[in-house]
Amino acid sequence: MTRTLRLAIQYDGTRYHGWQLQPGLPTIQGEIERALGRILGEPPSLAGSGRTDAGVHARGQVASLKTSCGRGADVILRAANALLPWDIRVLEIAEAPEDFHARFSAVGKEYRYQIWTGPVVPPFLYPFAAHCRARLDAAGFSEAASLLLGTHDFTAFASAGGADVDPVRTVMASDLLRDGDLWVYRIRAGGFLHHMVRNIAGTLLEIGRGRWDPARVVEILASRDRTRAGPALPPRGLFLETVFY
Amino acid sequence: MTRTLRLAIQYDGTRYHGWQLQPGLPTIQGEIERALGRILGEPPSLAGSGRTDAGVHARGQVASLKTSCGRGADVILRAANALLPWDIRVLEIAEAPEDFHARFSAVGKEYRYQIWTGPVVPPFLYPFAAHCRARLDAAGFSEAASLLLGTHDFTAFASAGGADVDPVRTVMASDLLRDGDLWVYRIRAGGFLHHMVRNIAGTLLEIGRGRWDPARVVEILASRDRTRAGPALPPRGLFLETVFY
Repeated sequence: MTRTLRLAIQYDGTRYHGWQLQPGLPTIQGEIERALGRILGEPPSLAGSGRTDAGVHARGQVASLKTSCGRGADVILRAANALLPWDIRVLEIAEAPEDFHARFSAVGKEYRYQIWTGPVVPPFLYPFAAHCRARLDAAGFSEAASLLLGTHDFTAFASAGGADVDPVRTVMASDLLRDGDLWVYRIRAGGFLHHMVRNIAGTLLEIGRGRWDPARVVEILASRDRTRAGPALPPRGLFLETVFY
Repeated sequence: MTRTLRLAIQYDGTRYHGWQLQPGLPTIQGEIERALGRILGEPPSLAGSGRTDAGVHARGQVASLKTSCGRGADVILRAANALLPWDIRVLEIAEAPEDFHARFSAVGKEYRYQIWTGPVVPPFLYPFAAHCRARLDAAGFSEAASLLLGTHDFTAFASAGGADVDPVRTVMASDLLRDGDLWVYRIRAGGFLHHMVRNIAGTLLEIGRGRWDPARVVEILASRDRTRAGPALPPRGLFLETVFY
């Protein structure tokens, strides 16, 4: 009998070469598969909701697993956390419908990008935020963010390295949350292109700085030109926040 | 002309052997003195408000410095942060009265000890909290904490290694703050003995677990016996929060 398990996963991605298994390199998937292999007594094949790049973090990554192991989900959960390094945690393991697949069943995701806007980055935030020392205009940043709502061709915000077939994505939320000097850009969409959030956040930051008008994002979208967006912000500020099913 | 500067300092203590300069080992004081030496053009002698142990963090450490260097405080601040590793930050440098001394002028300190009480420690909190999986009684923990208020001989909560002359200290605040599964024990006192906060937090946790009654802290205080308190909690949950002047 095969069963399907759904795993809720958090990680501090600082030490890892991203989610995706890569021979000889520490990756999140690699660490979790190694731990599960010892617990399940079979080589596990774990499906993540999607990849995250080197240095990117997750508060709400989801993975699915088909296994013939009969051990209870709670037993597997405890054993996995005992075997995993501290910066990768499985928060929950639940039985899922047989056809549940973390990637194919997902209907959307939320990412957050953190930017510290004060003069000195607190040591507790440095691994989790980009730094912008410039005086920023929150109204311009927010206005530009809202212009991304809806369905658009996001080619201009995709990394040149990506090979996405269909560049059209629907954005359901795109806004700025502020907690003192910490700015958090939140974007929720049906799907994302390669480096899309970091490219968008970099563009919004140029606008927040006053270098470009908010309407510039509409021009960038329409251009479908990858050279027109702002520079990608570093991976350390990015969090995969939630996967929707 | 000599002037006195007052530095506000934050650090993630994970990678360091504590505040105090130690030859051949990475310490917070050592890193800051090395950076300041390059900026001031003279060997700096930095006085911290007090030592913190290996692995202990600070949100509000204060240090004082006498220097004959005439560079502006803001220039020194920027240069120091450019030279320091990311996990040590100088938040502010201000001119201080000539007789200001970070240790001798201090009238009190606040420490906080963080305990994660949920089943799985989030990776973002692991370096900054102890973990207690047991079901805890917040009322018992808080009642015991409040029994430490006032002036007592804290010998029973001092580490055997300490050589404090006068073990009498006055506690102005001793309470529990809760933020979901994160419990934060806050203690404010005129001064602290060696390992006092970690020993007290460990004792309060035994009481929260229901192993001892809250009144036990009064007996432990009265005993002046270092073997009667609970085990010291690990350094990673401890923060020097504020120094009062």
